Amino acid sequence: MDTNSRSAAIAALRANDREIVLLSHSAALLSWDQETCMPRKAIDERSAQLSLLQGLIHERTVARRNGRLLEELGCSDENPRGDGGLPTDDRAFLRQYQRRYRRATRLPRDLVVKLAEKTSRSQAVWAEARAADDFRAFAPHLGELVELLLEVSDRIGYPQHPYDALLDEYEPFMLTSHVDRVFSELRADLVPLVEAIGRAPHVDNSMLRREFPVQQQAAFGTAVMQALGYELDRGRLDVSAHPFTTTLGADDVRITTRYSPRFFNSAVFGIIHEVGHALYELNIAEKYRGSLLAEGTSLGIHESQSRMWENMVGRSREFWHHFYPKLTARFPDSLGDVDLETFYRAINAVRPSLIRVEADEVSYGLHIILRFELEKALVSRSIKVADLPEVWRATSRELLGVEPQTDAEGVLQDIHWSMGAIGYFPTYALGNLYAAQFMRTIEADLPSLWSDVRDGEFGPLLGWLRGHIHSHGRTRTAAELCNDITGTDLSAAPFVAYLQTKYGDIYGVR
Amino acid sequence: MDTNSRSAAIAALRANDREIVLLSHSAALLSWDQETCMPRKAIDERSAQLSLLQGLIHERTVARRNGRLLEELGCSDENPRGDGGLPTDDRAFLRQYQRRYRRATRLPRDLVVKLAEKTSRSQAVWAEARAADDFRAFAPHLGELVELLLEVSDRIGYPQHPYDALLDEYEPFMLTSHVDRVFSELRADLVPLVEAIGRAPHVDNSMLRREFPVQQQAAFGTAVMQALGYELDRGRLDVSAHPFTTTLGADDVRITTRYSPRFFNSAVFGIIHEVGHALYELNIAEKYRGSLLAEGTSLGIHESQSRMWENMVGRSREFWHHFYPKLTARFPDSLGDVDLETFYRAINAVRPSLIRVEADEVSYGLHIILRFELEKALVSRSIKVADLPEVWRATSRELLGVEPQTDAEGVLQDIHWSMGAIGYFPTYALGNLYAAQFMRTIEADLPSLWSDVRDGEFGPLLGWLRGHIHSHGRTRTAAELCNDITGTDLSAAPFVAYLQTKYGDIYGVR
Repeated sequence: MDTNSRSAAIAALRANDREIVLLSHSAALLSWDQETCMPRKAIDERSAQLSLLQGLIHERTVARRNGRLLEELGCSDENPRGDGGLPTDDRAFLRQYQRRYRRATRLPRDLVVKLAEKTSRSQAVWAEARAADDFRAFAPHLGELVELLLEVSDRIGYPQHPYDALLDEYEPFMLTSHVDRVFSELRADLVPLVEAIGRAPHVDNSMLRREFPVQQQAAFGTAVMQALGYELDRGRLDVSAHPFTTTLGADDVRITTRYSPRFFNSAVFGIIHEVGHALYELNIAEKYRGSLLAEGTSLGIHESQSRMWENMVGRSREFWHHFYPKLTARFPDSLGDVDLETFYRAINAVRPSLIRVEADEVSYGLHIILRFELEKALVSRSIKVADLPEVWRATSRELLGVEPQTDAEGVLQDIHWSMGAIGYFPTYALGNLYAAQFMRTIEADLPSLWSDVRDGEFGPLLGWLRGHIHSHGRTRTAAELCNDITGTDLSAAPFVAYLQTKYGDIYGVR
Repeated sequence: MDTNSRSAAIAALRANDREIVLLSHSAALLSWDQETCMPRKAIDERSAQLSLLQGLIHERTVARRNGRLLEELGCSDENPRGDGGLPTDDRAFLRQYQRRYRRATRLPRDLVVKLAEKTSRSQAVWAEARAADDFRAFAPHLGELVELLLEVSDRIGYPQHPYDALLDEYEPFMLTSHVDRVFSELRADLVPLVEAIGRAPHVDNSMLRREFPVQQQAAFGTAVMQALGYELDRGRLDVSAHPFTTTLGADDVRITTRYSPRFFNSAVFGIIHEVGHALYELNIAEKYRGSLLAEGTSLGIHESQSRMWENMVGRSREFWHHFYPKLTARFPDSLGDVDLETFYRAINAVRPSLIRVEADEVSYGLHIILRFELEKALVSRSIKVADLPEVWRATSRELLGVEPQTDAEGVLQDIHWSMGAIGYFPTYALGNLYAAQFMRTIEADLPSLWSDVRDGEFGPLLGWLRGHIHSHGRTRTAAELCNDITGTDLSAAPFVAYLQTKYGDIYGVR
C-alpha cells in the first residue's frame, strides 16, 4: 500500500472514530442528565433515546468498511498496530481501533441483545433479592449470565484463560495470570497486616459521624477540588445517588458526589476520588483531542489516579496540615475539639468490615481478591452458582476474619454481577498497586512533593502525572506506562510497603 | 394501493419519524445543557456534537424513500393528507410529515450550509454592532441574509407573498394577508388606546424595584408553577440567560427563568409564561406520544398559552387575590406596605417604551407591528437595509409615540434578524390575539372560571385547555383550532376588547 492510500485509509478510520466519539459523548450527556437532573417520569423516553444512540454507535463501530480498511493497513490480532511504516500516533490509534472493532464484530447481534435483556432484567431481580436477602431468587439469573459471558469469552477469544477476555473489557491487554501473581503477593502480606491492626488499640473515628451541614461540605469540597487543579470552566460538580465521573467532551469532564449530613467522609473523599479520575481525562494531550485515544488507557490506571489523590494524597498528614485549619473553620462545632493528629488517625482508621464500599485502604484489597477468586472459579466452572454464598462466607473469614450473617451483606452486596460486569472488580485493586508503584518514581522525581502538599501546592504532582500518564491517553497500555515509568511490571510490593509504613506508624504494628 | 401496503407505508414513515423525534429530543438536551449547565470551555465540542446530530436528523428527514412512500400514499402539495381512505390520525400525521419533508427537500444543501454559516457569523457581528451602536457594521450581513431568505422563499414556494414561506416556518399554514388584516385592526385600536393611557394619571410601580431576594423568588415561583399544574416529576426549573421552554421527551418538558434581585417581574411572570408553554407540550394526547404530532401546532398557538397564563390569568386581580397574601409573607419588607389593588395596578402599569422585551401588554403588539411592517418591506424589496434605522424611528414615533435616540435601542435591539428568523415576530402578537379569542369561549364554557382562579383552583382552566387545544397536538392547524373553538377566523377584536375593559378600569380611559 502506498503512502497516499495509507493516509486516506487512516483518515477514513479517523473520521469514523470521530463520529463514534461525538455520539458517545452525546449519549454520555443523556446518561449524566438521567443521574443528576432528569425528572422521574422521563425514564422511558430517555431509554429509547439512549438505545437509538447506542445503535448508531454500534453501526459505525462494526461497519464492514472499517474491517477492509484495517486489513489494507496490515492490522491483525498479531499485528494490531498495522504496517511498520506508519507514524507512531497512527499505530497507537490503530491498536485501539482494531481492539474495539475486533471485540464488537466478534459478538453476534443475537448474543449482544440477549446479554442486554438479561442484564437489564437481572439488575431488577438482584435489587429485590438483596432487599429480601434471597440469593436463590437471583441464582438462576446469575447462572444464565455466566453462561452468556462464557460465550462472549469464547467468541472474543483469549490467550490462556477464559477470564482473560472478560478482564480485557476493563483492563485492556492484561492477563489473568498477571492478576493472579500480584494478588497472591498482596494477599500474603495484607492478611497478616489486617490481623495485626485488629490486635492493636482501636483508633477513634466517632467524630466523623457528628453534624456536617451539607452546604458547608459542598463549599469545602469545591475549594479542595479547585486547589487540586479541577477547574469549573471545564467541569462541574453535581449530586447523584452513586458518585461518578463522566467525559462529555474534551473540555467537559463532570463529577458527582453524595452528601451525608452526619458522616464526613463520603462527600469530601468522594470528591477527591472523582477529581482524580477527572484530571486524568482533562489532561490528555491536545493532539489526541476528540478521538478514541483521548481516554484513560485502562480502568486500573484510571483508578490509580483516583486512589492516589484520594488516599495517598488526600488522607496524608501533609494534605491536612494545609487543609485542616480551613476545615475546622467551617465545622467549628464538630471539629473544634479535634486536633490534626486525631483527625488524621480517624480518617485512616482500619476496621475489617463486610461491605466493600465502606472498606478502609488496607482491607479493601482483600474484598477485591475475594470477588476475583469467585469470578475466576465461576468462569472456570470449578464452583457452581448455588455454592457462592457458602464459598463467600468461608473466603471472607479467611481473608478478612469476618463472616456475613446474611447474603445481603455477603454475596449479594454488589450490583456488578447483575450487570454482567465480571472482570471489573480487579481494576479497583490494581489501581492501588499502580498508584503505589508510580509514587516511588514520583517521590524520586519530585523530592519536594510532600512539602509542596503541605503548602497546598498540587501543581508539581499534577504536572508530573500529566507528563508521565495523563497526556498519553490510550497511546500506551497500562503495562507500557508501568514499565516506562517504573522500569518493571506491576507488582504488589510497593503498595504493601506503603501500607506497612503508613499503618505501622498509625497502629504501631509491622 | 391496497390496505396492507398502505399500512406498511405509514408504518415506515412513522418509524422514520420516531428516529427523528428521538434524535431531536437528544439534540434538545444538548442545547438545554449548553444554556443551563455546560462548563464555559466545552462549547467547541458541543457544537460538533450538535452539528452531527442535526446532520443525522436532516439525513432521515430528506431520505428519498420518504418521498416515494409519500407519493405512494397519494400525498402532494394539493393533497397533503394523502388518500381519503386513511384514518384521521394518519392523515393528520401525513400532513405534518409532508410539510416537513417538502420544506427540507426543497432547500439545496448549499443554501442550507450558506445560511447556517451566515447566521452564525451574523449573530456575532450583531452583538458587537449593538454594543457599539453601529448599524452600518451589521447592515451588509443583514442584506446578505435577506437575499438568502428570499432564495429560501423562492425554493419553498408561496401562495401569494414571498413572506408567506418565511412565516410558514413559525406559523404553519398562515398567510401574510391574514396577518396584515388582523394587524391593521389591532393597530387602529391600539394606537389611540396607548395615547389615551399616556394622558391618564401615571400608575406607580416603583415598589416592584425594591429588594426581592432570589431564593424567596425561586420558592414563590416554584409554588406558583406547581399550583398551575406543572409538576416536577415531568419537568424542572433552571436558570439561563434567556428564559425558554424545551421538550426533551413526552414526560420531560423543562423551563428556565432568570432572577433579578431588585425587580420582581422578570422571574415570576417569566415562570408563569414558560409554564404556559410547558403545559401545552405536557398535555398532548397519549396516542401522539413520541411522534411529530406531539408538539404545539404553531408558535402563535404556543404563545397564546404562555400569554394567557402570564397576562390574562397571572396579571388578573383574581389570581393575586389568591397569591398576594403568600407573596407579602415572603417579602414583608418590600411589599408589607403595599395593598393588593396597588400591587395589581403596578404589575399592569402601561408605559410606551423603546424596548420590546420590556413592553407592557398594551403596547407590546405595536412593537410587533413595527417589526412585521419592516420585514415585509424588506422581503418585498420596497425598502433597503440601509434605510431601516430611519424607517424604524419614524414608525416607532407613529405607533408608540417614542423614538429611539440610538440604533442599539432601535433597529439593533433584537437578535432575531441576525439569526435569519424573519417571519418569527408576528407569532408573539398572534399569541395575544388567539388567547383573547379563546378566552371568550372559555368564559362561556366555564362560568366559574374567575371565582376558581380567585380560589387558587386552576384545574378547570387547564382541563379546558387540555381538551380543546393541548391534546390535539399538531393534528389541527392554528386556523382549524381557532375555528373549532370560536366558530370564526382569528380577529383582533376580542383582544382589543379585553384590553379596553381591563385598562379602561385601571386608567379610567376608553
